[in-house]
Amino acid sequence: MANQKRGRQSFILSDPPVITHWASVAGKKESEGPLAHTFDIKSQDTYFGQKTWEQGEKQMQKLALGKLAEKANMKLEDFDLVFSGDLLNQCIGSSFTLRNLGIPHLGLYGACSTMAESLLLSSMAVGGGFADNAVAMTSSHFASSERQYRFPLGYGGQRTPTAQWTVTGAGALLLTSEGEGPYVTHVTTGRIRDAGVTDANNMGAAMAPAAADTLKRHLFDTGRTVEDYDLIITGDLGSFGSELFLMLLNDAGIDAGTRHLDCGNIIFSAEQNAVCGGSGCGCSAVTMNGYILPRMDAGEYNRILFMATGALMSPTAGLQGESIPGIAHGVVIERR
Amino acid sequence: MANQKRGRQSFILSDPPVITHWASVAGKKESEGPLAHTFDIKSQDTYFGQKTWEQGEKQMQKLALGKLAEKANMKLEDFDLVFSGDLLNQCIGSSFTLRNLGIPHLGLYGACSTMAESLLLSSMAVGGGFADNAVAMTSSHFASSERQYRFPLGYGGQRTPTAQWTVTGAGALLLTSEGEGPYVTHVTTGRIRDAGVTDANNMGAAMAPAAADTLKRHLFDTGRTVEDYDLIITGDLGSFGSELFLMLLNDAGIDAGTRHLDCGNIIFSAEQNAVCGGSGCGCSAVTMNGYILPRMDAGEYNRILFMATGALMSPTAGLQGESIPGIAHGVVIERR
Repeated sequence: MANQKRGRQSFILSDPPVITHWASVAGKKESEGPLAHTFDIKSQDTYFGQKTWEQGEKQMQKLALGKLAEKANMKLEDFDLVFSGDLLNQCIGSSFTLRNLGIPHLGLYGACSTMAESLLLSSMAVGGGFADNAVAMTSSHFASSERQYRFPLGYGGQRTPTAQWTVTGAGALLLTSEGEGPYVTHVTTGRIRDAGVTDANNMGAAMAPAAADTLKRHLFDTGRTVEDYDLIITGDLGSFGSELFLMLLNDAGIDAGTRHLDCGNIIFSAEQNAVCGGSGCGCSAVTMNGYILPRMDAGEYNRILFMATGALMSPTAGLQGESIPGIAHGVVIERR
Repeated sequence: MANQKRGRQSFILSDPPVITHWASVAGKKESEGPLAHTFDIKSQDTYFGQKTWEQGEKQMQKLALGKLAEKANMKLEDFDLVFSGDLLNQCIGSSFTLRNLGIPHLGLYGACSTMAESLLLSSMAVGGGFADNAVAMTSSHFASSERQYRFPLGYGGQRTPTAQWTVTGAGALLLTSEGEGPYVTHVTTGRIRDAGVTDANNMGAAMAPAAADTLKRHLFDTGRTVEDYDLIITGDLGSFGSELFLMLLNDAGIDAGTRHLDCGNIIFSAEQNAVCGGSGCGCSAVTMNGYILPRMDAGEYNRILFMATGALMSPTAGLQGESIPGIAHGVVIERR
């Protein structure tokens, strides 16, 4: 049976690719948080042995990719295709990781939606017969991100009430056409929504409309309801963004409250002073790969909808007074 | 017949998607060059009626997308999926174009390889049955690019002997599962190659090794030779990069000289003072969409290999002493 387009934004994979392995790398603060025990690699060194934060971020992706190969008992050159991206200008975390490794690479930019975007495209590549396996990967780093989007840490800037804390972490997962593990059955590609938010410290509000839009379209396209899912997972809306997300859904007559889990809300504890919670590509990457997928594999969830959310902002655009567009891509993961 | 992976990096599309329409938008200097007569939209205003160059770049993509819809006799909402990216930090040229248009979007970052990367992924989406149609789109702008990667134009910096001129232009093309036009039969995904070039004014040298690598892999994976192609098109190696590209191929016993055409070498005339030629995502986009595809459609070429080349550089990485990785993706386009 051929793959099927469903409605405006979704498709069903006739031959669902399997997520056979996953790996996570986390920084210092993340390794002191409630999910610390779930990460594969933890570091107390925010530079990960490198000279700069940007190089440190690249190093996290390298560690994640290496760990993934180790778990899958594969060599790096056995990977058919890597889909990856990150928040750094010109995605150097990803490009520098793949530099001279000899693995075919397709670079993405989806801001914090990258874990879902890379998973979506990996599913397309493997599910369409274009590759036997594909790696979806992303990362973010608190220090490189703050310097780029807001202020260098040395400035000691105050955090605003809607601020979130960019997660220092990287995640990589492997999709294959055959194997054991949870599998990807449906995908809903997001549309860019911009509700006019101009505050780079309020990304939850910038992303919530996109997340609500993608969930609504997903349910419409597939004819499913919220109750069909054990969990509806958003990437990094944080506490304020999550509240908006649920309000927007309520306006559309959808009650997602009991099934909703936001990675940004669970990665740090209240004592860790992350204000509205975690953010960054790494937030959903390490939460999915550390916490969610192993529990799913163990039978705790049968069917989840993973929607990583991205704030497509840029320092230049901010200075030019532009508002922040948001996007969210949805991927349905089920247990065999 | 299912899609087939071929060798390490290539795949064959069992149901080749058709490139039914294409559109190009060009800036002032491009509209004074040898390909001027081939572009759909030409502007004497480098701001394209906007307040900033970045907004101008977004406007070029909007114009290209609108022209594409007009040519295809479609509404914007008829597009199933847009794959796009650009050179600006956080790809705002692309995100801001798609803002609130209601079209599903997957953001890419492949630097100047984006026209080929977006075409590759559009082929995957349509050829795999995930979408009925897909748009591949990209842009670049001389002024926004110079300010970002090198020096603001107001500084009046001197151009070095290996400098290239970032093309101000945007291109969009439409792939569909059915229709009339040239079609995509094979794809070769690139690997990141870094030969240690650290000069942001010598991108040709940074990209040539990747282009040579992709061509070698393509020929190896498909069992074809250079003679199987009417043209082997690189994106923006420029004159210096083209020379290196052909030398590297010669070292491998491949003589591509007679079939090779570099978009960067033909978009400006010698009198236009572009030093080593054109560059930027827009270079291959407008050359393909303005010059190559119409000639192919008219029967001048039967089979071409299009390899856009990207220099995955970033201002931050440059300041940190990093060298510039390159990548090139190959797409085979044939006439029915």
